[in-house]
Amino acid sequence: MNFLKNKDIKKYKKEYEYSYTLGVFPTLELIEKKKEQIIKIFISSKGIENEGIRKIEKIAKESKILIEENDKMINRLSNKNNTYAIGVFKKYRSKLEKDNHIVLVNPSDMGNFGTIARTALGFNIKNIAIISPGIDIFDPRAIRASMGAIFKLNIEYFKTFSEYNNRFQENEKYSFILDSELYLDQLERVENKFSLIFGNESSGLDEEYFKKISKGIKIRQSEEIDSLNLAISVGIAIYEFTKTI
Amino acid sequence: MNFLKNKDIKKYKKEYEYSYTLGVFPTLELIEKKKEQIIKIFISSKGIENEGIRKIEKIAKESKILIEENDKMINRLSNKNNTYAIGVFKKYRSKLEKDNHIVLVNPSDMGNFGTIARTALGFNIKNIAIISPGIDIFDPRAIRASMGAIFKLNIEYFKTFSEYNNRFQENEKYSFILDSELYLDQLERVENKFSLIFGNESSGLDEEYFKKISKGIKIRQSEEIDSLNLAISVGIAIYEFTKTI
Repeated sequence: MNFLKNKDIKKYKKEYEYSYTLGVFPTLELIEKKKEQIIKIFISSKGIENEGIRKIEKIAKESKILIEENDKMINRLSNKNNTYAIGVFKKYRSKLEKDNHIVLVNPSDMGNFGTIARTALGFNIKNIAIISPGIDIFDPRAIRASMGAIFKLNIEYFKTFSEYNNRFQENEKYSFILDSELYLDQLERVENKFSLIFGNESSGLDEEYFKKISKGIKIRQSEEIDSLNLAISVGIAIYEFTKTI
Repeated sequence: MNFLKNKDIKKYKKEYEYSYTLGVFPTLELIEKKKEQIIKIFISSKGIENEGIRKIEKIAKESKILIEENDKMINRLSNKNNTYAIGVFKKYRSKLEKDNHIVLVNPSDMGNFGTIARTALGFNIKNIAIISPGIDIFDPRAIRASMGAIFKLNIEYFKTFSEYNNRFQENEKYSFILDSELYLDQLERVENKFSLIFGNESSGLDEEYFKKISKGIKIRQSEEIDSLNLAISVGIAIYEFTKTI
């Protein structure tokens, strides 16, 4: 992989063993947290005045990371005209730690996922479980939406919720379900490690199943809307739960 | 305007006097709340099995709204293949009521704005001020991101923050500023009507100015991220403020 040739680097597909960051900010996060995974960094000739690019060049030199000015490559991998840096890296797997978790059941929107990842990090929740099928966290659009936050998180895929549940039985589990009795704003101090479980953007959670294996909880909302945006719900939930720690 | 001919209906530009909804859900919201503004509804032949389309047809017939199956028009106005309904309407102005407000200073992202509009509605905050320059709320992409919530809200543009401030002096003003002393999670019961003020996605608020004319407040966050996504910040803030009502 470290000898991946330029001609073999193509627009991302899920089955590839490598992916890449689009833009200066996520590339800096990649360098900071997953330096050992980097295959090569490409920078644009247009970024010559950019402070972030100077920083990337400096670190790359110090750390002996391959770096190359290559506008053709940038254009090949990015649709946007203003991408100044791309960091190509070998994909990796991470394992969840025993701690507080966000559990996303079949998340399907990359933008939402990226925002959730960044928000979780902002509240010091560093472990996210994804119950398959779900979005590909290494899709460059998901990485960009997270502003590179995914490199600072442990994100692990599970085939089923049971698989997750069996490994983390000790966590107190809360499922966000619209017809729950318990409102988030009535939450009492949570003493144990917790898992906050959220369903798919359109279909939500299988309420019957999740009510059995967890506490159902909901965010108070008016009847004017069907439901809150998923990332907003997760953000509000994380805010409330981490407040009680 | 009510006699706008099909050949004159074009892909949206800000300067047009009309705009349109893209999709069944926002079109239903348009019909529910701003029926009098509707010029014409177009539906797709592909939507024949769609329950929402049946509902739109029924209401249009009852209310004598022009409705037409026109795939060519749908393709002209929409980039997406799965748009089944488009509601063309005459733009309108609305005025803020004396109540709780969200104030967005120079918002620049349509997706964020749409999510904020829908979230505000979900917490019964029905008045949003936009300090110019800011996104065009009638851009079909903003309408879609709001899932049609904009039709249920009063959204008013102000040339400057002072113009807003002079008219709503009685509201207690809170500005979301990163280097404030007051944390949102320490907020005490708010007795008066409030205005929650948020800056632009990249540049934030002019901290010196807003600290003078309002209470600075911030959301507790880790140092791992620069700042939360704007829509997430607004969502968390609305949740906390409406909890204390």
